[in-house]
Amino acid sequence: MNSFGRLFRVSIFGESHGESVGITIDGCPAGLSLQASDLLPDLERRKGGIQKGTTPRQETDFPIFKSGLFNNKTTGFPLTILFENNNTRSEDYNKQRSIPRPGHADWVANQKFGGHEDYRGGGHFSARLTTGLVAAGAIAKKLMPGLQIAAAVTEIGGYKDTENGLQKAIEAKDSVGGIVECRVSGMPVGLGEPYFDSIEAVLSHMLFSIPAVRGVEFGTGFAAAAMYGSAHNDAILDNTGKTRTNHAGGVVGGISNGNELVFRLAVKPTSSTSKTQHSLNWETGTTEDFSIKGRHDLCVALRAPVIVEAVTAIVLADFMLLEQKIKRVL
Amino acid sequence: MNSFGRLFRVSIFGESHGESVGITIDGCPAGLSLQASDLLPDLERRKGGIQKGTTPRQETDFPIFKSGLFNNKTTGFPLTILFENNNTRSEDYNKQRSIPRPGHADWVANQKFGGHEDYRGGGHFSARLTTGLVAAGAIAKKLMPGLQIAAAVTEIGGYKDTENGLQKAIEAKDSVGGIVECRVSGMPVGLGEPYFDSIEAVLSHMLFSIPAVRGVEFGTGFAAAAMYGSAHNDAILDNTGKTRTNHAGGVVGGISNGNELVFRLAVKPTSSTSKTQHSLNWETGTTEDFSIKGRHDLCVALRAPVIVEAVTAIVLADFMLLEQKIKRVL
Amino acid sequence: MNSFGRLFRVSIFGESHGESVGITIDGCPAGLSLQASDLLPDLERRKGGIQKGTTPRQETDFPIFKSGLFNNKTTGFPLTILFENNNTRSEDYNKQRSIPRPGHADWVANQKFGGHEDYRGGGHFSARLTTGLVAAGAIAKKLMPGLQIAAAVTEIGGYKDTENGLQKAIEAKDSVGGIVECRVSGMPVGLGEPYFDSIEAVLSHMLFSIPAVRGVEFGTGFAAAAMYGSAHNDAILDNTGKTRTNHAGGVVGGISNGNELVFRLAVKPTSSTSKTQHSLNWETGTTEDFSIKGRHDLCVALRAPVIVEAVTAIVLADFMLLEQKIKRVL
Amino acid sequence: MNSFGRLFRVSIFGESHGESVGITIDGCPAGLSLQASDLLPDLERRKGGIQKGTTPRQETDFPIFKSGLFNNKTTGFPLTILFENNNTRSEDYNKQRSIPRPGHADWVANQKFGGHEDYRGGGHFSARLTTGLVAAGAIAKKLMPGLQIAAAVTEIGGYKDTENGLQKAIEAKDSVGGIVECRVSGMPVGLGEPYFDSIEAVLSHMLFSIPAVRGVEFGTGFAAAAMYGSAHNDAILDNTGKTRTNHAGGVVGGISNGNELVFRLAVKPTSSTSKTQHSLNWETGTTEDFSIKGRHDLCVALRAPVIVEAVTAIVLADFMLLEQKIKRVL
Repeated sequence: MNSFGRLFRVSIFGESHGESVGITIDGCPAGLSLQASDLLPDLERRKGGIQKGTTPRQETDFPIFKSGLFNNKTTGFPLTILFENNNTRSEDYNKQRSIPRPGHADWVANQKFGGHEDYRGGGHFSARLTTGLVAAGAIAKKLMPGLQIAAAVTEIGGYKDTENGLQKAIEAKDSVGGIVECRVSGMPVGLGEPYFDSIEAVLSHMLFSIPAVRGVEFGTGFAAAAMYGSAHNDAILDNTGKTRTNHAGGVVGGISNGNELVFRLAVKPTSSTSKTQHSLNWETGTTEDFSIKGRHDLCVALRAPVIVEAVTAIVLADFMLLEQKIKRVL
Repeated sequence: MNSFGRLFRVSIFGESHGESVGITIDGCPAGLSLQASDLLPDLERRKGGIQKGTTPRQETDFPIFKSGLFNNKTTGFPLTILFENNNTRSEDYNKQRSIPRPGHADWVANQKFGGHEDYRGGGHFSARLTTGLVAAGAIAKKLMPGLQIAAAVTEIGGYKDTENGLQKAIEAKDSVGGIVECRVSGMPVGLGEPYFDSIEAVLSHMLFSIPAVRGVEFGTGFAAAAMYGSAHNDAILDNTGKTRTNHAGGVVGGISNGNELVFRLAVKPTSSTSKTQHSLNWETGTTEDFSIKGRHDLCVALRAPVIVEAVTAIVLADFMLLEQKIKRVL
Repeated sequence: MNSFGRLFRVSIFGESHGESVGITIDGCPAGLSLQASDLLPDLERRKGGIQKGTTPRQETDFPIFKSGLFNNKTTGFPLTILFENNNTRSEDYNKQRSIPRPGHADWVANQKFGGHEDYRGGGHFSARLTTGLVAAGAIAKKLMPGLQIAAAVTEIGGYKDTENGLQKAIEAKDSVGGIVECRVSGMPVGLGEPYFDSIEAVLSHMLFSIPAVRGVEFGTGFAAAAMYGSAHNDAILDNTGKTRTNHAGGVVGGISNGNELVFRLAVKPTSSTSKTQHSLNWETGTTEDFSIKGRHDLCVALRAPVIVEAVTAIVLADFMLLEQKIKRVL
Repeated sequence: MNSFGRLFRVSIFGESHGESVGITIDGCPAGLSLQASDLLPDLERRKGGIQKGTTPRQETDFPIFKSGLFNNKTTGFPLTILFENNNTRSEDYNKQRSIPRPGHADWVANQKFGGHEDYRGGGHFSARLTTGLVAAGAIAKKLMPGLQIAAAVTEIGGYKDTENGLQKAIEAKDSVGGIVECRVSGMPVGLGEPYFDSIEAVLSHMLFSIPAVRGVEFGTGFAAAAMYGSAHNDAILDNTGKTRTNHAGGVVGGISNGNELVFRLAVKPTSSTSKTQHSLNWETGTTEDFSIKGRHDLCVALRAPVIVEAVTAIVLADFMLLEQKIKRVL
């Protein structure tokens, strides 16, 4: 249940305040040059504490390879990468235990797992688990040097001027949502299948696995619902498949057409806001006001682009292997 | 690649103008009362020819059970359901062969499958394949009598007054897109998992498998990207998990919270419009104007609700089995 | 649960006395020349009524392609192949219903499926389901023209002179077991993985799926348990991997080494013997003597070789695709 | 490729002389009491250095839980268990590099992975990887307190008096093979399916994943091939499914019948014998005599029983979850 992919398969594990978080990548071709430093730039982008609107917590995000690497090359066997958890302050969470935080998984996890879940810092639900995804994504990117995958925040709080949108949230002392857009150029023609293995189907599966994502659209997306066919259809111009417009976002019939792959995600505001909130206290059985202490991301969308790139790279590497466009031994 | 699900697993096959289309359902519990007449209401809804804006073609959509049924009960073994193809006029498609229709899979399929694809009527890409999904969905619904799954078109061509939006497209002699909304009440608490098996992740996988879907959003969806956390968070009111608002659309941390499950899809305008279009002629290597003859859906979104309900039921039946909320023998 | 394979994936369905039996093959490369006549020789070998010791029943084993074939070539989409059931005499089975036949699945199926199983002629348990496997195997063989897969009965009733062993069983008016050996030459080096995807692991999975198989051994097999290492080890002679002996049966560390792949199966005697047997009558709750009427295979091992070849071909085609030794479009 | 199971799923990783070996278990129900000490007895049985005929190497086999455990209970999320590698002497292996050892994976791994494999101590092929399997097996056993799973060596070098067989190998200064038998009592009726998910099929998959296993047989096994049906069939005696004999080894039609589950494995002699051997030197291109230095198991079958029990428990836990005989939250 915590694995995804067919030939390039990732399995995540770990809890926010447990021993560690990590990932196992099964199916990475043998012979890829790889060392920890290859992963650090993307891991650095994922970390907070640098940009305005992200938390100043210092997580230790150094990847430790536990298997699958030999003489700085992949062996073709599973790569397990650990990130140790340090400096966690779990006592903060015990106090909160009986008041499930709205927007968080506290209440559903407690119901589903009978109270056995590791509730500290969100446990397995924590966005800290995305550290492993970012590591796997950096490896997937290395497998596909011909692809350029770039995601960015294009809206915050409804403002296309993201600085402005963020500033308004800071002034409001509230968390805020945003839009992330991802574009992939260099796409080969022919990735994906009709129906269940369409690019949109498989990619959305991974995109909606990212915490806080509430919507995904490809190409013109929701705007297409208001268009006429004559305006939406992309005229094919030549034998490379280049189209005059790109309302399809590079995918037709579930299959890449060689044009730029374009999609967008809606990221909800961080559930942990400093505003007073209202929730059930499951010990007393009554509802009460409370507020969350501690440092949290104001706008979790700001952390999302590198994660979006990572899962996109993971999905595309899998499709490339299925189409035999990446060899099993490099 | 043409299968989906873990414990309630569907596999589709067939081509629009081949012998047949069909589906195999593996993992349906034994002992479910089932006969063809149980499937007909939903299959009827999927068919065109009744409502304005759908094609008047008469497809023969009678389900033929080839396995898995005995004495009008499921046996616990695979159910294979066939729909024979009749009255297909394939000669129409040969003429069009060298001019790939914009918005359709003609060009990518030809590239990917080296010309071996069955191009008649869209082949395996055809929405006719959804007949099997609707049949499987009707069976999944029977497994979950406590759930009410209802989808409807809520917008056409940008108009919430769908009659109006459709009328404008008819007047424009063009195809048009729409929005479909689905709501599920009676949801148990605890379906879904964090990350890859979240309800959003798995459900979006199936929703994006439906032809013409270009966007999926849960709860407040894309609008959440413009909200503050204090406004988006749903206050938990009591021990049943009931929330004051339902911006989450019934899913928190990937897990159902017992509130109504709510999501929306963007459906693009039918690619087959009667307007003149422009595309490559791959025999001559030049582009040319052309127009598509024949009867086609004006607004494919009108056909989508019953398909959306079906894939939703399929996904939820799988989650219910995983959570042991449906028995393996009824 | 009724599917097997990763890239070349087969799904079986059907019951012995239901509408039909069949198979869906997902992942067969596009562009393979294929017609029903390609499958008939192996289907003919599987049928009884020809050789001594097999049942004279005439099953209609003509393959009907329902999808995935266009202009006598595979399209790259799922191939569904049906075999209609005709001339079945189900009334024979109703009488027997309350006395589960020893060696057959009658009692366990009734317990497991709560009485909903199609018990006529063994239902989904019937060896008639292997018809689909043989069809899929014939297709897999066509994908690998460089491989020679040949299975044969090497022992009946303990006699290496199989004619003699069969004759003794005929005289004893009893059913009898046998040994089947399979050899594959032309094997490429490098198929298989250590541990769960070793050739032995994956192949044995499929071999033990064949009804009546009770043992599987590779190379020297059980005899290796009585050997010393210095005698068992196969000296490597040259850069092609050729070994002086082949005790390993062509697989080392789970991976093919280019030498002949050799394995053997133990096939139990047909459970349906004409001798008087003893079993529970679940209606009366007492045990009683009974005998099975009707025509049955005396030695089911005689039917096994073509089925063994088929599942071997299916498994090897999957490995070949994983190793990118078969292209996705031919 | 390095994962197995559907609902109770294990994924192995690691190399003999790398950082670590380990396993991730996904799907273990929440609420199981678990600590390292629960795993130590079986891990101790797997280790060499105690019984005659096993290597005196001292591996550090202490399980480190990296995820999935909280307050000494499973959380329902992935359990990752690490075993650090210490005191490895890799320089031994560099010398041997160009002479692939017969019976080992050296040559095939080099061919398949283009020289990128971690060849030290067998790398990912090493039996050290079974440490993780034994840990997972001990957890699976805890989930099924009603089952008694017991494996033992029943033959060494062809001798049922195993002491004698071992002594003869010691005197011959050679490695030697053996037979392992496993029996499971307390089996529920109804685990397994016909065809691909039969108990024999799934269990043999895992049994053949154990290094050095060359044959697997259920119940009477290969001896059944020499029997008549009237002798082989097990008469059903009462409504519990108890049979007079147990030639079937507790599985009929792929499904457990409640009688004792019985199967046997053939384990080849350890490939590392101290006798002089002959192999290719791939640098010189000629063959030469060589002998392997170092301490190795004389009879690897002696280590196998606890591993056989472990994979049996893993497979049965998966079947029990599929049949909803183990709850998802304990």
